[in-house]
Amino acid sequence: MLRLVLAVFLLSLCTTQFVNAGDDPLSTWNDSASKREIISFVKDVTDPKSPNFVKPQERIATYDNDGTLWKEAPVYTQIIFALNQVKAMAPDHPEWKDNPALDAAIKGDHKALAATGMKGVVEVLMATHAGMTTQDFEKIAAEWLATAKDARFKRPYPSLTYAPMVELLGYLRANGFKNYIVSGGGVEFMRPWTEKAYGIPPEQVIGSSIKTKFEMRDGKPVLMRQPEVFFIDDKEGKPIGIQKFIGRRPIAAFGNSDADIQMLQWTLAGSGRRLAMLVHHTDAEREYAYDRDTHVGKLAKGIDDAKAEGWMLIDMKNDWKTVFSAN
Amino acid sequence: MLRLVLAVFLLSLCTTQFVNAGDDPLSTWNDSASKREIISFVKDVTDPKSPNFVKPQERIATYDNDGTLWKEAPVYTQIIFALNQVKAMAPDHPEWKDNPALDAAIKGDHKALAATGMKGVVEVLMATHAGMTTQDFEKIAAEWLATAKDARFKRPYPSLTYAPMVELLGYLRANGFKNYIVSGGGVEFMRPWTEKAYGIPPEQVIGSSIKTKFEMRDGKPVLMRQPEVFFIDDKEGKPIGIQKFIGRRPIAAFGNSDADIQMLQWTLAGSGRRLAMLVHHTDAEREYAYDRDTHVGKLAKGIDDAKAEGWMLIDMKNDWKTVFSAN
Repeated sequence: MLRLVLAVFLLSLCTTQFVNAGDDPLSTWNDSASKREIISFVKDVTDPKSPNFVKPQERIATYDNDGTLWKEAPVYTQIIFALNQVKAMAPDHPEWKDNPALDAAIKGDHKALAATGMKGVVEVLMATHAGMTTQDFEKIAAEWLATAKDARFKRPYPSLTYAPMVELLGYLRANGFKNYIVSGGGVEFMRPWTEKAYGIPPEQVIGSSIKTKFEMRDGKPVLMRQPEVFFIDDKEGKPIGIQKFIGRRPIAAFGNSDADIQMLQWTLAGSGRRLAMLVHHTDAEREYAYDRDTHVGKLAKGIDDAKAEGWMLIDMKNDWKTVFSAN
Repeated sequence: MLRLVLAVFLLSLCTTQFVNAGDDPLSTWNDSASKREIISFVKDVTDPKSPNFVKPQERIATYDNDGTLWKEAPVYTQIIFALNQVKAMAPDHPEWKDNPALDAAIKGDHKALAATGMKGVVEVLMATHAGMTTQDFEKIAAEWLATAKDARFKRPYPSLTYAPMVELLGYLRANGFKNYIVSGGGVEFMRPWTEKAYGIPPEQVIGSSIKTKFEMRDGKPVLMRQPEVFFIDDKEGKPIGIQKFIGRRPIAAFGNSDADIQMLQWTLAGSGRRLAMLVHHTDAEREYAYDRDTHVGKLAKGIDDAKAEGWMLIDMKNDWKTVFSAN
């Protein structure tokens, strides 16, 4: 009998849903409309008796990264990385002094850099993100991410993920969902750390990218990163990227800015029950408070049209018991 | 006791490897060097005690589609589809008569079409593959694939898959591998049927694609297919596509033509044990025999350099007990 019980117990571990109904699957969330909606949605689409039941292979959830899963304010982490890299790489590139944007970045003159506009920012990104193999870039990014620390929170950036969102990722995964990052950020800047931080493997990370070129070097094939855009995974690019990379429409999508709206619209346009949410940064004390008037993660239409469009706002200050994951 | 046996039996189904060692995991293959190499490779990389052990999440296998998993000779199925579509769509496009390639295609004059060269073929592809939403195209492709029949074998094309390769896909899947199609063919021409035919879900299909545009139509978002190339997943494009879409290097790769060589090189350039194979079409009786002198699936360097490069040829005629999957 004991062996039978043991076998049945082990068997139960094989099912994807072994969350005890009495446990709180979102313990880092305060009781709130957003928490109740997530749990109601998950119960509905995973209940074989529900008219909204969705087969496991079609349970796709997509998440923006910057400002949705980890901190993006006051400056995107990838920009901080690029500015750091300009300085680190400058000794090997004396010609950069002749470029106003690169020269400003080398000197740490952010005012002069800002004056060069978007063109200057792209030049800094291309100078620091192209010209090496994909393997070398991954190594550079991984090393920087493991050691660099955020100025305010004094912690490495990959630890500045949102605990309630990481718990949400696990809750959906335990219910048969496949989680995808769909971010405007560079795909090869994310992949070195998303598996450890979020449980999201490289093949489930969609992002912006530059072109690469296949070359043989000393008889070995390499992919050289080119200073030319391949794909921008932002705004209209998000549903385009979802279709290109996944080929299935998500049933749940999470963002935090107006640049995520097209992904939410694409998600909601499918049939059956859907979930579309926007993290609203309302917590100046524990993180940051920003929406309409900001350089990162502008959220205006997302607030104004939320009710009419069926997007639900997650109020960081009131809905989350804690903000950041444990260090 | 019976319940215990039943529970233990059910439990055994939960493990990824439940192939009885006494069973033949590749029963549609004759005993051959290629079959022995596949089985030796799989045992080696899945044995935790082997120095070549690979963690399940890193067991990525990539497969070309045309000529590797399904029939490609004497004409690629997607070309047959395009030629059929030109005729079906022509009544709505009187302007096509002014285009030599489209006019030849409408009239079924393949000689005149061939005279327009690659430019003409691209015009036929763009005319039939762009100008509609992604959803509409998927529907058109799925309907054609379900009804059109191959001229020689009198069967729908998605049934003309190779039984030994489908068995191989299942064998690797049962051993924790994630199988990806990496094909020069159109990704949205494959996704409607690859899950049923191969057990490969849409998100594991990488292929060539055209650009799409996000638009709102009657308040609903759609992705309109544009007559402009986004990505060609062929030759050098295969390792590039693998890096873009998967972000991990495969440990096993299967192709059938010189256009697959870069994928094989990329796969073999990783550390540890690797497997790189090319299906050699040697069976004029059951399928087709072609290699150096052909319009589809040219294989010359793949034969000449196989030994030096570590690519193993699969001899269709001698290595496979049967060729096509059951209808």
